[in-house]
Amino acid sequence: MATPKEKAEAFRALHHGTRALVLPNAWDVASARLFEDAGFPAIATSSAGLMVSRGYPDGEQMPRRELVAAVGRIADRLSVPLSADVVAGYGRSPREVAATVRRVLSAGAVGINLEDREPAGAGLSPVAQQVRKLRAVRQLGDSVGVPLVINARTDALRLAAGDARERSEEAVRRAIAYRDAGADCVYPMGLTDPAAIAAFVEALRCPVNVMVREGLPPVAELEKLGVKRISFGPSASYAALWLLRRAASEVLTRGTYDALLRGAISHDELNRLGVRRAPPVPTLP
Amino acid sequence: MATPKEKAEAFRALHHGTRALVLPNAWDVASARLFEDAGFPAIATSSAGLMVSRGYPDGEQMPRRELVAAVGRIADRLSVPLSADVVAGYGRSPREVAATVRRVLSAGAVGINLEDREPAGAGLSPVAQQVRKLRAVRQLGDSVGVPLVINARTDALRLAAGDARERSEEAVRRAIAYRDAGADCVYPMGLTDPAAIAAFVEALRCPVNVMVREGLPPVAELEKLGVKRISFGPSASYAALWLLRRAASEVLTRGTYDALLRGAISHDELNRLGVRRAPPVPTLP
Repeated sequence: MATPKEKAEAFRALHHGTRALVLPNAWDVASARLFEDAGFPAIATSSAGLMVSRGYPDGEQMPRRELVAAVGRIADRLSVPLSADVVAGYGRSPREVAATVRRVLSAGAVGINLEDREPAGAGLSPVAQQVRKLRAVRQLGDSVGVPLVINARTDALRLAAGDARERSEEAVRRAIAYRDAGADCVYPMGLTDPAAIAAFVEALRCPVNVMVREGLPPVAELEKLGVKRISFGPSASYAALWLLRRAASEVLTRGTYDALLRGAISHDELNRLGVRRAPPVPTLP
Repeated sequence: MATPKEKAEAFRALHHGTRALVLPNAWDVASARLFEDAGFPAIATSSAGLMVSRGYPDGEQMPRRELVAAVGRIADRLSVPLSADVVAGYGRSPREVAATVRRVLSAGAVGINLEDREPAGAGLSPVAQQVRKLRAVRQLGDSVGVPLVINARTDALRLAAGDARERSEEAVRRAIAYRDAGADCVYPMGLTDPAAIAAFVEALRCPVNVMVREGLPPVAELEKLGVKRISFGPSASYAALWLLRRAASEVLTRGTYDALLRGAISHDELNRLGVRRAPPVPTLP
């Protein structure tokens, strides 16, 4: 039975192997436990998947207490480390963001994903402000004795000013600042081009996270480029909901059930996902 | 903006049209809203899907207050009628079962699914006891002014004593008793054979529910057999989780993302599922 500290350290070590960490983003207990059973050594949450499954759009409209409860529910049923997507941290000040992270650690997560967008979602946070938030989160981890894994996401490739080259330079500048503020891994949202990935990894010289999306090279190629973490993002939610849409369309237009029945797990297999594999990890005091 | 009474009446009318009601069972807001947007005129919950997504096996291990909260969350985001699967009603006495139904009606459901298994799941409830429960639920609906749609499920085809013929006779006997106790629709779990479905419909002469599973005839054939309601049961959960398993296996063994990316909804489409389409219906006083 691992302590939160041991779990966090094990999760961090997965970012420093010769192989990349493939990290599936789940949205509820069933999806998280399925990924655990499939053999992934750690699980993350997807804010989009988790929030929409509970009736909120992606962002911070879902109350923080509900996010924390949902993370806790998943963490409680998993044996492997869980990383929580906390969006922009539910706060403008470093203190508020650290309070959010304190809560998700108490709920059982041992890693977080923090974006550099303004909480309202309008644009990028000033880099100095984001650095202060990351430092506060690092200090929080030190103070509670959980060396959490901080994945610092920058949306500069999409939201920074200027042309593609300027946005790319801003993403590197921000990622370096976030790394130096204590992030374990940096995540330039939207990066898929192999040459751009290689340049980013070379500039950072710390673990870099890329997300599964159209155009992302396969795992083996990403490993050659030096990528250390490959997350699903919301892609599993997108795929599962597309399957439901296809099944709905089929039964409504043709009156048949092929999409529902062609590939399926059994009732026993479903039920087992609702039962944890191992005793829970002790929570933070 | 429909009242609960109007919603319940609209839901009941869907059981008496010339076409069968195809009723998809969802497990969270995203799946429910996707089915609503696809055009289904009503939505149901699947106890298995809903409970496992929240970390409990199917049955009544999930606390009732959590079931009610989950139903309420879904009902709050839907415009169309919602039917809640309440398993065996969380109680041995008619009063306890009626108290459960009172809570799910307050949460916004206008229909329920009630099984005739013992709460512990060991076997069938005595038919007289199940009849008393159904009468109590009908009276509860009258007393709160919500003419809820009661779908009375019998597991006699699987759990009754005797050979297949005797179990089938017991299913008919129970379904008639449940209909006469006030059920709007009866649901002989496990029925797929066309001749057996026709015989059951003929014996009951009230709306009959069948569930999507391997071997179930297509909708058009079921309509000819007189079936009035075709529910997905947990099949959509089974299919969605199988897709995740296939995606997991592919990325872990081949390092590619075809199953995640081949069919997908967009981030905007996902987000819209977290926002209700119409103002909420007023809840029970």
